[in-house]
Amino acid sequence: MSEEVAQGPKESPPAPRPGPREVWKKGGRLMSVLLSVNVLLLACTLISGGAFNKVAVYDTDVFALLTTMMLLSAFWILFYVLRTARCPDAIPYRDAHAGPIWLRGGLVLFGICTLVMDVFKTGYYSSFFECQSAIKILHPIIQAMFVIVQTYFLWVSAKDCIHVHLDLTRCGLMFTLTTNLAIWMAAVVDESVHQAHSNNSPHTNGSQARLTHDAERAGNPVGGDPCPCNTAICQIFQQGYFYLYPFNIEYSLFASTMLYVMWKNVGRLLTSSHGHSHAPSPVSLFRETFFIGPILGLMLFVVGLAVFIIYEVQVSGEGSETQQALVIYYSFNIVCLGLMTLVSLSGSIIYRFDRRAMDHHKNPTRTLDVALLMGAALGQYAISYYSIVAVVVGMPKDLLGGLNLAHALLLIAQHTFQNVFIIESLHRGPPETEPQDTAPKEPCHGLTFANLDALHTLPSCPPTPRLVGPSSTGPQEAEAIILAPRGHWRRRCLKDISLFLLLCNVILWIMPAFGARPHFSNTVEVDFYGYALWAAIVNICLPFGIFYRMHAVSSLLEVYVLS
Amino acid sequence: MSEEVAQGPKESPPAPRPGPREVWKKGGRLMSVLLSVNVLLLACTLISGGAFNKVAVYDTDVFALLTTMMLLSAFWILFYVLRTARCPDAIPYRDAHAGPIWLRGGLVLFGICTLVMDVFKTGYYSSFFECQSAIKILHPIIQAMFVIVQTYFLWVSAKDCIHVHLDLTRCGLMFTLTTNLAIWMAAVVDESVHQAHSNNSPHTNGSQARLTHDAERAGNPVGGDPCPCNTAICQIFQQGYFYLYPFNIEYSLFASTMLYVMWKNVGRLLTSSHGHSHAPSPVSLFRETFFIGPILGLMLFVVGLAVFIIYEVQVSGEGSETQQALVIYYSFNIVCLGLMTLVSLSGSIIYRFDRRAMDHHKNPTRTLDVALLMGAALGQYAISYYSIVAVVVGMPKDLLGGLNLAHALLLIAQHTFQNVFIIESLHRGPPETEPQDTAPKEPCHGLTFANLDALHTLPSCPPTPRLVGPSSTGPQEAEAIILAPRGHWRRRCLKDISLFLLLCNVILWIMPAFGARPHFSNTVEVDFYGYALWAAIVNICLPFGIFYRMHAVSSLLEVYVLS
Repeated sequence: MSEEVAQGPKESPPAPRPGPREVWKKGGRLMSVLLSVNVLLLACTLISGGAFNKVAVYDTDVFALLTTMMLLSAFWILFYVLRTARCPDAIPYRDAHAGPIWLRGGLVLFGICTLVMDVFKTGYYSSFFECQSAIKILHPIIQAMFVIVQTYFLWVSAKDCIHVHLDLTRCGLMFTLTTNLAIWMAAVVDESVHQAHSNNSPHTNGSQARLTHDAERAGNPVGGDPCPCNTAICQIFQQGYFYLYPFNIEYSLFASTMLYVMWKNVGRLLTSSHGHSHAPSPVSLFRETFFIGPILGLMLFVVGLAVFIIYEVQVSGEGSETQQALVIYYSFNIVCLGLMTLVSLSGSIIYRFDRRAMDHHKNPTRTLDVALLMGAALGQYAISYYSIVAVVVGMPKDLLGGLNLAHALLLIAQHTFQNVFIIESLHRGPPETEPQDTAPKEPCHGLTFANLDALHTLPSCPPTPRLVGPSSTGPQEAEAIILAPRGHWRRRCLKDISLFLLLCNVILWIMPAFGARPHFSNTVEVDFYGYALWAAIVNICLPFGIFYRMHAVSSLLEVYVLS
Repeated sequence: MSEEVAQGPKESPPAPRPGPREVWKKGGRLMSVLLSVNVLLLACTLISGGAFNKVAVYDTDVFALLTTMMLLSAFWILFYVLRTARCPDAIPYRDAHAGPIWLRGGLVLFGICTLVMDVFKTGYYSSFFECQSAIKILHPIIQAMFVIVQTYFLWVSAKDCIHVHLDLTRCGLMFTLTTNLAIWMAAVVDESVHQAHSNNSPHTNGSQARLTHDAERAGNPVGGDPCPCNTAICQIFQQGYFYLYPFNIEYSLFASTMLYVMWKNVGRLLTSSHGHSHAPSPVSLFRETFFIGPILGLMLFVVGLAVFIIYEVQVSGEGSETQQALVIYYSFNIVCLGLMTLVSLSGSIIYRFDRRAMDHHKNPTRTLDVALLMGAALGQYAISYYSIVAVVVGMPKDLLGGLNLAHALLLIAQHTFQNVFIIESLHRGPPETEPQDTAPKEPCHGLTFANLDALHTLPSCPPTPRLVGPSSTGPQEAEAIILAPRGHWRRRCLKDISLFLLLCNVILWIMPAFGARPHFSNTVEVDFYGYALWAAIVNICLPFGIFYRMHAVSSLLEVYVLS
């Protein structure tokens, strides 16, 4: 969040000359944030209340609230697309950083999965519609409509800097963002309750029985209630829609980040020079690597898939098989995380020799990327610290305790070093500035240049070469040809590193997203904290950990393109 | 957090010219934030683990961690005061907004209360030192030393913009901030456990019995354990230190905000024009009010104190007395909150006629103030929404249910409108700019001016008078004399409003800070959510609500001075 704050040259502020349209932008933002906070807290209260068995809030209340919110958001989106965006001068600028193609592509992908989930949900609730309230069938249908409308809206409008209907647009964007966050919360809570229910057999103690009771009350009528899900098709629908929840969760988070960037861009003024988008030429996209990174990454990816399948098959077996599955799972993760830590670290070391200028431009998308990387990593950090305390204080003397400790420590190190590497990469200037940057140093070492005229315009031998900012473009093509081999070496390394990290993050995303939960198969933490507390910790923090992997993948793709 | 972002003229960024000392400020900040996050999560894990009875983390572990952190922070502070601050050119600028006198005064006041608490704690643990571990006696002694060192440090250094040992200073400040947050968390947890213990008698059900057991394990050996606190002096020490916890909590939060502002100011460059501090002349400080606001506020304050005493006396009695105490308490709060809402609203309306320019200067202290006001209000918002859901869904048909609902709704409205009023006030320019602002309009209405030369330098009849920024100071004194009466009327109203709100916030702070807990005396929410869940909600959110009142008082004092 504090990205825009930290920029050296902005410290001495310009004269307080307000923009031509708005006197006080913060006032408009304040209103929309207050609206959003209040709606979000109401939704949070109902959703969390609905998840506890002692409380008389029923899931139909939650469904009704979510359906209303989605309908209102969809109406605003239609108004925006049909009226606001068609005003003259509505969108004088477009932010080139906002809504990059991989974010929009991911949104469409997850949107399609959410639509499939909605079909499954409609089918599941239709299986016993005579004893359910109508809102439960209406909810997935409205959600499907909302997803279609919102995905279209974000696809066409993600880059807009809107300059009409400012307050209405801010409130509309914030309300839609709140709707997505509420859907996300409801999905996380529903998935947690379902998972506590399916983890029923190994740990049937007091707290577990209570959670199971919740699960039954919260809309999974599996027990001896009047609405049984007995038919095969109903079972398939139920299984299917729970497997598709992770995609719905990711869809909501993707949409939220894009809406937040749009909200930041409302009323924003851009200079034309600001819009450089670092877009690479498509020719150079898959050429400049040493192939070591992608090949090693692909190997780890394939091995990881095999480990994941073995783990899933063995972990539900008896004692020794579970033990073996956990050893395999932890060993693979330790190797993978160790390699990723080393590779991130070497990437950061390469940057110590890199003389590209830092990019101090204001960039809400990047600010948000950095905040999300740091914020989402907190989820995994928290799980790791709870694991470490459990292992260190509980002192299990076996192999699994040691593996668990090493795994938790490496998770912290890997998240830290990967974040440092990604954030530093995102703040480097485009590669075109690199030759410019090295150019002023060269005359001091007596080299010859193709274009000597250019040197007269440059400062001679600055004492600190990293302080040279990007000046006007001009004779750099000639220099770039001469200096290309040296620049290439570092750039290739960075591209290899980002591809390797990207593939590793994909496999580390797949495992938890598709149901690997060593946190519960492993008994150290469950015994130490008790099932209820440990389940609460994992179920709150793990979705952030999964989102972190997703987000790291998209950031690393950007790093790959920028390097 | 997003305050610096929202400023119109900054949107077109200056050329990326790094500051003279640091290439990439964000890099240094990133390191210190990562350090802080990791230490804080470790502390959070241990403290929360220590509060659960199933977990084998003992409070001695928590005390040992806190003691170590305080020692390290104190060492860094001594290094800073003795070495860093004495370097030549270490502090080229001082931020006039940082560490205002009421913040530093509050820090010293709460610091003294914390010292008294430490004396009580030392006395309490010394009463049975033969069966306690030494760390429990060492901890309050080290804390007292830490409080003295830190208060001195913040008193003399709160305004510093440090320009040497940048990374070390950032890490040191963040580590000290983390230490304060860890102390705050430990105090909140300890107080909650104690309160759950003292609420033992009215609600002895299953969850309550468990919490009581926690309280005994967490360091309150009251039961039949080998270390009884039987002597009168020991009882007094124990009672005393629990009553002083709120001051310790506030001290930690005050110190944290000041450390955060110092951290933001590390390496900051200020222009000399930036340092205007809005300092009023001491003569005008207590003169320009209509006396209605302070008198009405004082009346409410006195009535509130009486209501609080009646409530405290009656609430622990039998059924009908508790009922009566709650009715009195809620009625007073509803009247008080209703008046505050109306007054805040009228303040915002007055600003619609106020033509002072908005202050777009960068100001980390103000940014933090706004973020804290908005963030701390979330605590009270959350409690209110949970109350509303409980009353609306649970539908109690009696008077108390209605009063509870009205109280919760008014709390939300009051926090919202008060925040809007305070935030708008903090963003107004100093009162000196007001005559400047009205000046350009006057020639259009045919008025005469003392200094006609000045008018030629001003734009004639701008279509939107609020868009004129503060220009260079010059002939404004002459105009200010002419226009003074009109400006005075609004300014007096605003001063009255801020004093009234200030006094109301003080009484609304006193009630919960000194132990009024209608949340538990009232049975609606306890019956709806169950004791454990409702206690968790209140104990997590209420400290933020109390801190909000404190912080609103200091912000309103600033509003009073600025108006």
